[in-house]
Amino acid sequence: MRTHFLLAAWLSTGAAFAAAPAADKPPVTADVLAAAMPADWRRPDPANTLYLDLPAGRVIIELAPRFAPRHVANLKTLVRKNFFDGLPVGRVQDNYVTQWGDIDEVRGELAGKPSLPDETTFAWSAALPFVKLPDTDGYAPETGWIDGFPVGVERKPAARAWMTHCYGTIGVGRGDWPDTGDDTQLYAVIGQAPRHLDRNIVLFGRVLRGAEYLSSLPRGSDALGFYSDAEKPQRALIRRARLAADLPESERSAIEILRTDTPVFAKYVEARRNRRESWFVRPAGHIDVCNVAIPVRDAK
Amino acid sequence: MRTHFLLAAWLSTGAAFAAAPAADKPPVTADVLAAAMPADWRRPDPANTLYLDLPAGRVIIELAPRFAPRHVANLKTLVRKNFFDGLPVGRVQDNYVTQWGDIDEVRGELAGKPSLPDETTFAWSAALPFVKLPDTDGYAPETGWIDGFPVGVERKPAARAWMTHCYGTIGVGRGDWPDTGDDTQLYAVIGQAPRHLDRNIVLFGRVLRGAEYLSSLPRGSDALGFYSDAEKPQRALIRRARLAADLPESERSAIEILRTDTPVFAKYVEARRNRRESWFVRPAGHIDVCNVAIPVRDAK
Repeated sequence: MRTHFLLAAWLSTGAAFAAAPAADKPPVTADVLAAAMPADWRRPDPANTLYLDLPAGRVIIELAPRFAPRHVANLKTLVRKNFFDGLPVGRVQDNYVTQWGDIDEVRGELAGKPSLPDETTFAWSAALPFVKLPDTDGYAPETGWIDGFPVGVERKPAARAWMTHCYGTIGVGRGDWPDTGDDTQLYAVIGQAPRHLDRNIVLFGRVLRGAEYLSSLPRGSDALGFYSDAEKPQRALIRRARLAADLPESERSAIEILRTDTPVFAKYVEARRNRRESWFVRPAGHIDVCNVAIPVRDAK
Repeated sequence: MRTHFLLAAWLSTGAAFAAAPAADKPPVTADVLAAAMPADWRRPDPANTLYLDLPAGRVIIELAPRFAPRHVANLKTLVRKNFFDGLPVGRVQDNYVTQWGDIDEVRGELAGKPSLPDETTFAWSAALPFVKLPDTDGYAPETGWIDGFPVGVERKPAARAWMTHCYGTIGVGRGDWPDTGDDTQLYAVIGQAPRHLDRNIVLFGRVLRGAEYLSSLPRGSDALGFYSDAEKPQRALIRRARLAADLPESERSAIEILRTDTPVFAKYVEARRNRRESWFVRPAGHIDVCNVAIPVRDAK
């Protein structure tokens, strides 16, 4: 009765445990991924891949220049000054965000005073490579993906698109106005998607791998998860933050991401909308954009 | 420009930083909570409060006998046999679940072979104290709260209700059929709400306080987040699991929860649906049931 294997499998991604598909059954996740061809995967552009090397391991972040070009460019400038090296992870608020960078505001001179626009949203155009999720969403008229990033879209009347706050999304801390974030303090979502922040703050990337090095840190005990003075000496420090393009090949992490603009991805989403693995008694018939984890693997 | 205070406040719950409300403005979260009366708060029933004492701290869990009476009764029997004491947290899968209990299946004799029904859902009745959330939900026809727990409801044709998988929800590991979970391995959600599991598995409680002691543990490196053999010696062990009612007053944690069946709670939800704190430039006009964190405080 105490079925260990099944108990292990019951919360599976389905990747390892699916049975062979019958001809008349829709494919489960494992089938879809097994049938994917090399061209269904992509390698992230090294020029837009940021490594955040923490004591516990490497967080690999993909930057989204289409979404927030000026902030991405400014961040690259900071990274190339080694701005983040040695700075702390200064805030970990449970079920919310991990925030790092110039928390103690000691590197203002190095940061400069960039004049950055409000890039919380960008102009919608039918020419955008928008892959629409068929399901309804309460926070946005439409959701889906652009360039592999989760997005919300409002065609009318606003004609804007924006990245959605999902687990692992990376944003720019700011003051009381959207143009006050200067990329010196960044945050990652580490809990339930705080979608109420959408369209309120600049998002410009997401974690591809290593989110656990941000999410498993001790929570800070001061308000909002900032570390108290007593906790500060134990804060995790950023060993270095580098663009993959600026590192020799030997120091890069070779990974691949499932493309979101392919028929295979559409099948993947359907396999996640309706789980047909044997463990499930009731497929949901729905999925939230933040529940679609885009597969990542070691490069082959 | 580098507005530290605001940067600290920008991801606030709003509880600490709201300005005094103007007469013509809807109240923000802090106003709503400041206006709550003692009767708007409740103390959880000690007979349905489970303490999971881990090395890092106490996880306080409220059990939901209305939702899964037989599983709750069986769990209490196990707890009163000290079943969980010394057992490990054996699985931590990032953005998914933490699982603890008889992971290594060494206490089968103590567990017995309870005959437990499928309690993944329960009968809907108009007499249930259902507090409806006005917003749409993709996974359930209606959502809201019963007894302070998040629920999905399908009035027709199924006439069933069920607890929803939200951050901190507690469920029962099982094999390939809903009646195979015997409460010896439990899990808590530690990431984006895996709502596709709703109606597929028995949920019977949720974390009131201390979720961070489950969510900040190191992730396991084996498949599904189980700890590898090399990691097993470092697994966190449950010091003891006890019902509050079985402990002397001095060992109980005195906390209060905002009631969900009051006008104050409706105002609280509205303040979360539309954030009017100065930091926000665009209120969402919507909230997901799993984004409504029910306030908990030390008992007064």
